[in-house]
Amino acid sequence: MTQIPPNSSKTEVRTLSPEDEFLYTVFKAHEGGKLSVQTSRPIIDKGDLSIIYTPGVAEVSKAIHQDPAVAKSHTWASQLVAVISDGSAVLGLGNIGASASLPVMEGKSALFQNFAGLNSIPIVLNTQDVDEFVETVLRIQPSFGAINLEDISAPRCFEIEKRLIEALDIPVMHDDQHGTAVVVLAALANASKVVNKNFEDLKVVISGAGAAGVACTNLLVKAGIADIIVVDSRGIISRDRDDLGSFKQDIADTTNPRNISGDLSQALQGADALIGVSSSRIPEELVATMAEDAIIFALSNPTPEIDPDVAAKHAAVVATGRSDFPNQINNVLAFPGIFRGALDSHATKITDEMKLLAAEAIASLVTAEELTADYIVPSAFDPRVVSVVAGAVKNAHS
Amino acid sequence: MTQIPPNSSKTEVRTLSPEDEFLYTVFKAHEGGKLSVQTSRPIIDKGDLSIIYTPGVAEVSKAIHQDPAVAKSHTWASQLVAVISDGSAVLGLGNIGASASLPVMEGKSALFQNFAGLNSIPIVLNTQDVDEFVETVLRIQPSFGAINLEDISAPRCFEIEKRLIEALDIPVMHDDQHGTAVVVLAALANASKVVNKNFEDLKVVISGAGAAGVACTNLLVKAGIADIIVVDSRGIISRDRDDLGSFKQDIADTTNPRNISGDLSQALQGADALIGVSSSRIPEELVATMAEDAIIFALSNPTPEIDPDVAAKHAAVVATGRSDFPNQINNVLAFPGIFRGALDSHATKITDEMKLLAAEAIASLVTAEELTADYIVPSAFDPRVVSVVAGAVKNAHS
Repeated sequence: MTQIPPNSSKTEVRTLSPEDEFLYTVFKAHEGGKLSVQTSRPIIDKGDLSIIYTPGVAEVSKAIHQDPAVAKSHTWASQLVAVISDGSAVLGLGNIGASASLPVMEGKSALFQNFAGLNSIPIVLNTQDVDEFVETVLRIQPSFGAINLEDISAPRCFEIEKRLIEALDIPVMHDDQHGTAVVVLAALANASKVVNKNFEDLKVVISGAGAAGVACTNLLVKAGIADIIVVDSRGIISRDRDDLGSFKQDIADTTNPRNISGDLSQALQGADALIGVSSSRIPEELVATMAEDAIIFALSNPTPEIDPDVAAKHAAVVATGRSDFPNQINNVLAFPGIFRGALDSHATKITDEMKLLAAEAIASLVTAEELTADYIVPSAFDPRVVSVVAGAVKNAHS
Repeated sequence: MTQIPPNSSKTEVRTLSPEDEFLYTVFKAHEGGKLSVQTSRPIIDKGDLSIIYTPGVAEVSKAIHQDPAVAKSHTWASQLVAVISDGSAVLGLGNIGASASLPVMEGKSALFQNFAGLNSIPIVLNTQDVDEFVETVLRIQPSFGAINLEDISAPRCFEIEKRLIEALDIPVMHDDQHGTAVVVLAALANASKVVNKNFEDLKVVISGAGAAGVACTNLLVKAGIADIIVVDSRGIISRDRDDLGSFKQDIADTTNPRNISGDLSQALQGADALIGVSSSRIPEELVATMAEDAIIFALSNPTPEIDPDVAAKHAAVVATGRSDFPNQINNVLAFPGIFRGALDSHATKITDEMKLLAAEAIASLVTAEELTADYIVPSAFDPRVVSVVAGAVKNAHS
């Protein structure tokens, strides 16, 4: 795609190709940003000023100073989600840094507002040092009620999330990990019904051991799947590998029960499900070796690991991350409801139990009558999604 | 005042005293916070999602990665003012910390929206170490277009502001210093006309050498007043003092041309104007020694340094920080327009020239016909204020 000049309002009038027209629309829609801050009540006269600001506000500050719990009820922070990134792994663009990642984080904040009615602000960090990232977030934390980490490269993202969860008593979740994992679990549970296979007996191959791959693996293990094989750029993760960092070592310890070695081709032979969460291409001849009625989720965006039409020749159910194919595995099915539920129930952590129940809730919105190979997850625009997910998270907390 | 229980909705129905009724109204108004984040356009279907979020947003991120200037036009950051505090010197409450300061910072953000139409978010910091404060703000800076520092104790505030201004190429201003100084200058200029004294010849005493005192001193010096005496808790700041930090040493070097020593009583003898910007009480017998047609600004809030009615017995013009007396010296006359003008003109610093012209603009809104001892500054709710101040700042920049 060619680049439209950013100052799109000055673009000359001419016949645009569909691609150019899309770019024009995109740049136009992002002009001036996508968020605004509003006041909850107008400030029209001195009386309003004395209530909203001095001297009245001092009484609220004094009350919080005496009882920190008052901050939860009388500031916006307790219902505010910070979307925080260092721009180190942005969409398919890689490490583009803080400033260039901001449109994505603004977009994410817009999704929180649009889908969950939650206030959200983007914070992008001018550092990619893990210690500095954690330290900075801890210092600004009293400004927020929850933290959605976003687009942070692996394996840094694992340590950053772990340390923040340990240090803070507010919900913290790296959505690229857990949002993806929750929707993958929901989709895989429904896909197993389509192909009439028992969910826990599925032989699952996960291609990619980045943020999404690790989180999908851990959640599928917790959901009861016994036979998972994870493949990274060096091949199958097994207990025989001696090049594993701590997070991949955990995977080696909890997956691959047959302890096979090799590469993706060995992993895929006879597998029931393939979950692609890396950008590496997967050749057709490999998926051709999968079991009968295979399930293929090719989630790399914008280009799936394997063309969905090609995948469909060898699989009974195919899903992607794209909106222009059936079965879109879209995080927006999960994160708005997860944060809504966690904040509404004053949860201090987002637990595995919450993620499992959130996945179940998403899956439940496709009834047995509706379930087909082309309809395994509800639409992101199904208005029931956020409430059932939030409800499941609240139940898990209580 | 007695404390109303924070959960004010549960307060029993009873006859409230006016004080309790005010507290009730205040807590009610702050419930759930005072700000919300809105999206600039709805996200109704997959098409919207592809424009606001993936894949469309990636094009905007790519454009910024190639040309950082695109961030200014295509994110909200360039028009976003962060109100940042560590809660170390909040209103009259002192060092109450980050969380308890948040209602004030939220209120300030609401004022930015209400008076200048600017997006603004409060950020409160969990550290009171100067190095950590500066470091943290530098790391989150790509998220914002301007920084309003607020309620930071002196002398820490001077170093924090100085270091941030040097390091960043966006407007940074500590409002407790410069907002106050601008409005004081505007008010003093008009007050000198009321009493028919030449502004530059005024003998001015400033009681207090905290954030506001230092900034008022520096701005009045730049505005041309030659005879200023500053008094801190240890007495008159003179070149003979050997207990001065660097910011007070600057004051010693630029004020007190008669190099007098002593305390406030020596300073006030024959003075034309007293500007109170500390919480220390000023006895009536001291102001009685001021010159004929004296000017007294008693700006401590909520309790002025001297009762305005008592002050009026010895002064021709009296101003306070309170809305229930005439001549309210209110920062809201200055900061919305200063930031609006700086952001609209893409200024990278807020300069002394901008502050001087902003003060002139505020003063100019009271015409010669309107000017009286009880009307030296326009109302904060005069809709012309923000535009003339913004215009002055823009002129200073261009």
